[in-house]
Order: sequence, then structure tokens, then C-alpha cells
Amino acid sequence: MKAKVIVMPKQSILDPQGVAVRDAMRHHGLPGVKSARVGKVIELELDGTTEAQLHEIARDMLSNPVVEDYTIQIQS
Amino acid sequence: MKAKVIVMPKQSILDPQGVAVRDAMRHHGLPGVKSARVGKVIELELDGTTEAQLHEIARDMLSNPVVEDYTIQIQS
Repeated sequence: MKAKVIVMPKQSILDPQGVAVRDAMRHHGLPGVKSARVGKVIELELDGTTEAQLHEIARDMLSNPVVEDYTIQIQS
Repeated sequence: MKAKVIVMPKQSILDPQGVAVRDAMRHHGLPGVKSARVGKVIELELDGTTEAQLHEIARDMLSNPVVEDYTIQIQS
């Protein structure tokens, strides 16, 4: 099974890295950039793992639920 | 327009962060994890930007083409 775990800062949380990217893009000739948010993506290849186990590990290990949300995309 | 830029380490490049995640998941009770790779995702909201401009900025600013590949997903 292939799965992607995408971890993004929560909408209500200030994302300084995203603000830096947005400002750099504006200075780089793209004034139309309204917002940028920077997160992590973890691509996994796994066998014998249930979706419930994947949610558990995404919540407990791969993200910080206080400031981040995760989504899981299972590919095959 | 909403777009996602996903930046991953090239397949041929060792990804120490991914190896650490894989080993941690194995020790956390998921022995079936075969590989993990960790990359970045940048979620953008932009107006008046062409796909060509987006590719340029993804190559020049958001990724390091020596060790990373990027993909662009345009959502609307």
C-alpha cells in the first residue's frame, strides 16, 4: 500500500514560513500571491497496516495536533 | 487560483529524515513500513499568475533542483 500523509498548519495558526514564502514570491515578480502555507508531506510504502493504524501514527507521531492538521491519501 | 507545489527529495538521494520516520514508525508498532520519504507542500492562493510563472518560481525558489523534484497541482 502507498499512502501520503499531508500535515499542514491549522488555518487559525500563524504560519511564519508561509508568510516568508508569500513575501518572497511577491518580491520575485508575482504580486498576485494572496497567501502561502507550508506543510509537510510524508510518502509511505507499507504492508499489513490498517487505515486506523495509519491515522493513529499520523496523529501521534507525524503531526502536532495542537497546531497542525493532517490528511491521509491512500493510493493503492 | 489555488495551487499546490509538492517538493520531494529525488529518488536517488538519501533522505535521512525519511529514514528516521521509517525507523520510528517501525519501533512504534508498524513493522510493515517499507519506506518513508519526507517532502514539503506549499499551498498557494494566487491571482493573475500563469502556470509557466508558477513552474519558474517552483524551480528557482521553492525547490533545490540538485536534490529535489517538484510537482504542481492546480486546483481551480
